[in-house]
Amino acid sequence: MEHFISVEQLTKTQLLTILKQAKAYKSSYPQNLEQIFCANLFYEPSTRTKMSFIVAERKLGIEVLDFNESISSTKKGESLYDTAKTFEAIGADLLVIRHPSDDWIEELQDISIPIINAGAGKKEHPTQCLLDLLTIYEEFGTFENLKITISGDIKHSRVAHSNVNALRKLGAEVYLSAPEGLEDPLLDVPYISMNQAVDISDVVMMLRVQHERHSQVQKNAHYLDMYGLTKLREKRMKNHAIILHPAPVNRGVEIDSELIECDRSRIFKQMENGVYVRMAIIIKLLKEWGMTTNENIIEKYNKTIHFEKARNM
Amino acid sequence: MEHFISVEQLTKTQLLTILKQAKAYKSSYPQNLEQIFCANLFYEPSTRTKMSFIVAERKLGIEVLDFNESISSTKKGESLYDTAKTFEAIGADLLVIRHPSDDWIEELQDISIPIINAGAGKKEHPTQCLLDLLTIYEEFGTFENLKITISGDIKHSRVAHSNVNALRKLGAEVYLSAPEGLEDPLLDVPYISMNQAVDISDVVMMLRVQHERHSQVQKNAHYLDMYGLTKLREKRMKNHAIILHPAPVNRGVEIDSELIECDRSRIFKQMENGVYVRMAIIIKLLKEWGMTTNENIIEKYNKTIHFEKARNM
Amino acid sequence: MEHFISVEQLTKTQLLTILKQAKAYKSSYPQNLEQIFCANLFYEPSTRTKMSFIVAERKLGIEVLDFNESISSTKKGESLYDTAKTFEAIGADLLVIRHPSDDWIEELQDISIPIINAGAGKKEHPTQCLLDLLTIYEEFGTFENLKITISGDIKHSRVAHSNVNALRKLGAEVYLSAPEGLEDPLLDVPYISMNQAVDISDVVMMLRVQHERHSQVQKNAHYLDMYGLTKLREKRMKNHAIILHPAPVNRGVEIDSELIECDRSRIFKQMENGVYVRMAIIIKLLKEWGMTTNENIIEKYNKTIHFEKARNM
Repeated sequence: MEHFISVEQLTKTQLLTILKQAKAYKSSYPQNLEQIFCANLFYEPSTRTKMSFIVAERKLGIEVLDFNESISSTKKGESLYDTAKTFEAIGADLLVIRHPSDDWIEELQDISIPIINAGAGKKEHPTQCLLDLLTIYEEFGTFENLKITISGDIKHSRVAHSNVNALRKLGAEVYLSAPEGLEDPLLDVPYISMNQAVDISDVVMMLRVQHERHSQVQKNAHYLDMYGLTKLREKRMKNHAIILHPAPVNRGVEIDSELIECDRSRIFKQMENGVYVRMAIIIKLLKEWGMTTNENIIEKYNKTIHFEKARNM
Repeated sequence: MEHFISVEQLTKTQLLTILKQAKAYKSSYPQNLEQIFCANLFYEPSTRTKMSFIVAERKLGIEVLDFNESISSTKKGESLYDTAKTFEAIGADLLVIRHPSDDWIEELQDISIPIINAGAGKKEHPTQCLLDLLTIYEEFGTFENLKITISGDIKHSRVAHSNVNALRKLGAEVYLSAPEGLEDPLLDVPYISMNQAVDISDVVMMLRVQHERHSQVQKNAHYLDMYGLTKLREKRMKNHAIILHPAPVNRGVEIDSELIECDRSRIFKQMENGVYVRMAIIIKLLKEWGMTTNENIIEKYNKTIHFEKARNM
Repeated sequence: MEHFISVEQLTKTQLLTILKQAKAYKSSYPQNLEQIFCANLFYEPSTRTKMSFIVAERKLGIEVLDFNESISSTKKGESLYDTAKTFEAIGADLLVIRHPSDDWIEELQDISIPIINAGAGKKEHPTQCLLDLLTIYEEFGTFENLKITISGDIKHSRVAHSNVNALRKLGAEVYLSAPEGLEDPLLDVPYISMNQAVDISDVVMMLRVQHERHSQVQKNAHYLDMYGLTKLREKRMKNHAIILHPAPVNRGVEIDSELIECDRSRIFKQMENGVYVRMAIIIKLLKEWGMTTNENIIEKYNKTIHFEKARNM
């Protein structure tokens, strides 16, 4: 019984099982996890990830407890641990957490309900990795021998590391492309230029220039021309090659605005896929933690008595 | 298949059909639109309209995705279009949008799910218009030959225009009453004084003095006496005449505080009616867009499998 | 038919009935109060109480309308009364209110739906009192002859008063312990030192030092040693004695951090119990107000028609 903190936890077989499960959920999924409560604890703003989790949860019939740090009693100085324990105490069966710290999981070792990492500082964002993987898997049916370039601010990305590792584990050939100074010396992966990237890649994964994290790069008016995906470069891509981007997109910075909905773009497909990989992870954890075995479901449903009956108590 | 942006889109017959449908929903309505997701994108504060939409959606069984601009990644500079596309991608079936721009609909032409206008700058607020119409329709059973005066800050109102047009389309005789400088030169409607208004009108629709939009008028201590609905003026109204106001009311500014819950007042009735006209519009759109035909419902419900079955996948 | 504003409203028998009902809900509760809407109007930040009410409501199947004062049109100057009337008009069946004023209930006399007090200034927080009572009741099965000390900032506590009265009504022997200047002269209860408290008490109820309400006391580095629950003092407690605290805890201020999850601590149990006493109060009020009699349920369920039928209207 583990929390879901990193894709590194998963073997190749486990990864493929999750992707297949997520894909299957596109046509059919369980909707009746009633009386299971999930608390979404988001300590950073996030439309996309949070809403995607909410849709995943509600599709499964899970009750959503929406915690918004800025308007809560964390003003009173409560720690992440105390908040997590509180939600456990009031009945949460599952926690989904995004927090600016890289290592917030370390203070939550004593929490006795499953936790899903929805973003940890600059270090991890495993469900984003899974949705990237699902989008590639749906396109090519395999990862073996695919050439995939991850391009942009590698240094500050919280998905580059896990994507590199997961893609290699699944058999892909991975390249990086980054402006000078935004490489990551910890990654032993060949760096290539954007021109090389579009020539050889089956998948070009653009990263977002993060205005929040540094403010220099994107002020360079030539960023798009030098390091981004321009319309000229897109024309050089292989016929079947596709474009990914985690969004939100900085239109005209890392990618030409017109390419966002071009034929090769899978950017909105990625968002759609995010819902289904999250459903798959939620179900996986609830099963592993014994919260949705047949027995438990029955126990839960025995609690469902008609109100007429309850009134006679 | 159209979005619902303005009451101008509707013929007299269509308007009456919606009002009748809304009225019918007061005693009976469909509650099982499960697995239909509606995203409420509100870029301006609004208790009343937003909560009214949420009640309408939940009464119908629709899942609510609650987007709060101030705590989301629009801080990262995402456009309304990109946000709308994102919600479409993660599974929204319907968008309800309020935005301070008059013409936000223009940038959303490529969105392929239905959109309901919940307020567009100073230009349109069509569901407010419909709830005004329903309140009058419930009272008199007809609009033919009714004398209706809209009174207050006509110039900055986002309902005056559409109310004038809709009421005339339905056969009413419309008048305006406004402080000097707050008339709207684009409207070809006779202006009368508040004294005349209370003497001749079957319906007096007061508008809200909008502290947010201009700060001069309401500081005039004589505003109520000169342009508002005082207790003296209320006494002059016809026996059967009623008072409307979109709320929130500035008590003692455009209307005497004691009149808000007087016998003639339909102000809280309007709020109640807001829920039912919104239900009617939502159902109308979902039908027109093919999202609740019998077939689609069946398709949706085929997805509902028991978890025991899902576990064997 | 009363609102639930204070535990003082309840007789000893009524109190015990609620505690027994809440305890029974731990194993079985009604889940089908569909189409009942509860508006949670919170004018102060609160994670714990608000989330606890939400869980209570959702467990019962009640629809939640979540009103967040800071992002609503109260900016437009709307009073609590007008906001409450608005929620009543749009379909709320029940209001749960927290507001910084001590006496907000006074302006809500004309509201015709039941109201539950979720915190009134420094004066009342009756559901907190009930969850304290349930935790003691579960532990000892009785209140007769229990020695209970309430310790900390008695003067500014919004539960000390009602806890003293309720505990005495139920047969307990109550003591207070407070730093100099934080006593409450209105309470005719013996004051003892913390050393005496741990020696004689069956229950030590610590109060929270409220950084928000005053800023002197907790800056005293010796606060814990002089007035708080240290590890040394905990060792002096009777074998069966337990520790309560309403949370959030100021670790190391009023209580040693390591005691929060010690064997005697019932702090997280209190949070769990909060959900069930709130369920009991909600059901009690809905019954008393005729909203969940058998007849009303039937009337409500007659509204549930299949969409196929609604489409033919």
